[in-house]
Amino acid sequence: MGESFGPWKMGADDEVMPNITSANVACGAHAGDPRVMRRTVRAAKQHGVSVGAHPGFADLQGFGRREMQADAAEVEDSLIAQIGALAAIARAEGVPIRHVKAHGALYNMAARDARLAGAIAAAIKAFDPTLIMFGLPKSPMIDAGLAAGLRVAAEGFADRAYEPDGSLTPRSRAGAVIHEPTLVVERAVRMVRDRVVITPDGREIPLEVNTICVHGDTPGAPELTRRIRAGLEAAGIQVRPLL
Amino acid sequence: MGESFGPWKMGADDEVMPNITSANVACGAHAGDPRVMRRTVRAAKQHGVSVGAHPGFADLQGFGRREMQADAAEVEDSLIAQIGALAAIARAEGVPIRHVKAHGALYNMAARDARLAGAIAAAIKAFDPTLIMFGLPKSPMIDAGLAAGLRVAAEGFADRAYEPDGSLTPRSRAGAVIHEPTLVVERAVRMVRDRVVITPDGREIPLEVNTICVHGDTPGAPELTRRIRAGLEAAGIQVRPLL
Amino acid sequence: MGESFGPWKMGADDEVMPNITSANVACGAHAGDPRVMRRTVRAAKQHGVSVGAHPGFADLQGFGRREMQADAAEVEDSLIAQIGALAAIARAEGVPIRHVKAHGALYNMAARDARLAGAIAAAIKAFDPTLIMFGLPKSPMIDAGLAAGLRVAAEGFADRAYEPDGSLTPRSRAGAVIHEPTLVVERAVRMVRDRVVITPDGREIPLEVNTICVHGDTPGAPELTRRIRAGLEAAGIQVRPLL
Amino acid sequence: MGESFGPWKMGADDEVMPNITSANVACGAHAGDPRVMRRTVRAAKQHGVSVGAHPGFADLQGFGRREMQADAAEVEDSLIAQIGALAAIARAEGVPIRHVKAHGALYNMAARDARLAGAIAAAIKAFDPTLIMFGLPKSPMIDAGLAAGLRVAAEGFADRAYEPDGSLTPRSRAGAVIHEPTLVVERAVRMVRDRVVITPDGREIPLEVNTICVHGDTPGAPELTRRIRAGLEAAGIQVRPLL
Repeated sequence: MGESFGPWKMGADDEVMPNITSANVACGAHAGDPRVMRRTVRAAKQHGVSVGAHPGFADLQGFGRREMQADAAEVEDSLIAQIGALAAIARAEGVPIRHVKAHGALYNMAARDARLAGAIAAAIKAFDPTLIMFGLPKSPMIDAGLAAGLRVAAEGFADRAYEPDGSLTPRSRAGAVIHEPTLVVERAVRMVRDRVVITPDGREIPLEVNTICVHGDTPGAPELTRRIRAGLEAAGIQVRPLL
Repeated sequence: MGESFGPWKMGADDEVMPNITSANVACGAHAGDPRVMRRTVRAAKQHGVSVGAHPGFADLQGFGRREMQADAAEVEDSLIAQIGALAAIARAEGVPIRHVKAHGALYNMAARDARLAGAIAAAIKAFDPTLIMFGLPKSPMIDAGLAAGLRVAAEGFADRAYEPDGSLTPRSRAGAVIHEPTLVVERAVRMVRDRVVITPDGREIPLEVNTICVHGDTPGAPELTRRIRAGLEAAGIQVRPLL
Repeated sequence: MGESFGPWKMGADDEVMPNITSANVACGAHAGDPRVMRRTVRAAKQHGVSVGAHPGFADLQGFGRREMQADAAEVEDSLIAQIGALAAIARAEGVPIRHVKAHGALYNMAARDARLAGAIAAAIKAFDPTLIMFGLPKSPMIDAGLAAGLRVAAEGFADRAYEPDGSLTPRSRAGAVIHEPTLVVERAVRMVRDRVVITPDGREIPLEVNTICVHGDTPGAPELTRRIRAGLEAAGIQVRPLL
Repeated sequence: MGESFGPWKMGADDEVMPNITSANVACGAHAGDPRVMRRTVRAAKQHGVSVGAHPGFADLQGFGRREMQADAAEVEDSLIAQIGALAAIARAEGVPIRHVKAHGALYNMAARDARLAGAIAAAIKAFDPTLIMFGLPKSPMIDAGLAAGLRVAAEGFADRAYEPDGSLTPRSRAGAVIHEPTLVVERAVRMVRDRVVITPDGREIPLEVNTICVHGDTPGAPELTRRIRAGLEAAGIQVRPLL
């Protein structure tokens, strides 16, 4: 959320906000600017949505989605500054931040590189060790968060296919993204209630997640988040922010 | 201080730091980046120097020195984010920030525009009402700080000429900047001890200041700050951070 | 046109392009990036639309719409670089550029400041003295262009109210922008055919324009440009690029 | 050259310029800005130095030295815009540009990636097929330039160690950079006169170069370039720009 910049709009934040419990808010590096940050935090507050920092590479034109050579100390310092900026904006709105989720290429790189995962964990710990670190299940991100003494939350992606080993099917492969909303809702329910996900070849594999991620710029995100929430609630699951 | 950026160096921070008591540290908008911010805070800590945020216009190429159309709400949000970024970096080094001084064109504009001065005060108050707001004596900045319930500190410029009405002689006028170190030291002593400054036409006018500002990019800043400090101490003045 | 940036879209360029004869293409400073520039030039080429450079202040977050302190030499150099960048992209598509129109705050400032108008003219002359300089009728821009030996084109704004002295009614005043398409079309026709415009108090004043400007980010721009073109053609006016 | 930015200085361009025959001038993406570009071109003109474009990744904070995910079409478009910007500035000074040398991480990546090398060649060809493409000897850059029908120039680095296979010894290895000026001069002479270079283990290997590169930010660059030029001339070699 909060990925507009200056005069440019992105995402349907106003429509998505009522359906979610935790918002990952861009911090002005890969997207967002101070006014967008404030507007986004204010909207989250109005809907009782928990606010988290969503820091990324300072690559505006590439939207933080281009992998780049990253020095661990540089990533740590950049993330401290980004988290601090968002937390300050949130404080001005009387709202605490609760979690941190790395964005885009930084997330993807940290999901396979313990050094970068450690830099993210170190930044969170340095800023506020009570914040929850979001990450890919079974990845170095989770390990790094735990090693730093942080609380961690494993993310599930209801609209993405998973390989038998529990990793995400790369977007470049056919069927990597699931577009049929009914299927996405069903997968979200099974992830949360049954702690499993179905692989492309039909196997049921275990997957422990604490939060379901939906990208704000997915077409149809407002409707999709509404249906996922309704689906989870219909399955008797209480949908609420992480504590 | 902290006005280097990426590979580009600016100022002689290492040489100046031992001579000062409070450092205004750039926050990544007009200058500085997260690594520079951290290195600068670390150096301040080593020398027992009090750290303040030095936010400015997000105009890197113009170094925040170009006046620009500024919406008060936009300035407020930008300053909250900048102060928050620096405070987070400082927290990672176990150091609190103590004050905020607006930079360059923003400082100059706020020194004559109550609306912008109010935006700066509002940003400080929203982030941490115990921070001290630095400003030009008798300007709207001081008024805005006091009106917001903040502690304020009036700045004196020992190397600048003052008009009979207490305003700074514009840099475009001959004699606006005083280059002779002996004279600068003498003026600093008189500002602090006698609460006066001598105008170009030889008059002694009252000037109440709480802090003496030296620009880190002034040629000879290390030597100048050393001599000002020595001069003040020789005059029996205790040089220390604001409390 | 071409005011998207990285992942952020702006304007309905694809829908507007078929209706116009000259496109002002952003050059990467206030908006646009090299890929957007290339895509936009390519679209212009496909529709036989004449390409012009639309340089502005290098203020991405403010979209070049914030007035800022501007040194004439700095503006000249910046515009040469921006025009050169777009012309190079256009050359790669086998298309020449034909005109230059300053953007946003730079346009507004140059419309009342001969020094900035001169900097724009100097940049155009230095790059290619055969390019046409667009500007506000009767403003220093037209004078500066002529003084530099350039061909100039006076712009009319069919959806803006004009004061009795021929200046634009400031946007801050009620009625400054005309939203009713039928009225806009009628005004465009009268500007071109009869060389007049009607002021808010009903007076008919003379206005000589060579080109009608419609902002690409105006809501309804595709439909509005289509109707203006149809209206002009229905009035027997041949709509074509400037030669 | 021309790698200053806004208020930040880099390199000793004024001292180096009298000693060289071709200058690679930054184009505003990894470093440089329009005023710096113009000042640099003007200085080159005064010293009869041939001007080339030195485009890089648009990563100012990382100075274009961080490798990053790069789409070939994006690199091509970015380079066209950068070369066009510099060529326009040069045209304003009445100077043609003669060559293009990719900068930093882009150079290093293109030296091993035919796709990126091809993008660079395509950009040059699209802008002006008479420009000379600089590149690492025997690398995909040379191949790509030739395949595009461009003239190419192989660069030698007199202060860098070479492996027996003719590749550069990575900077991370001891002895990769040669600091002793006498040795650097001797190596330059041998490269040009004898078409060989000595490897760290004392072997003489063949190396065909058309130009000797010295980094403008190398400490002692003015003295080093002066001595290299004097050394080459003492060896009877005529030092002149590529034609």
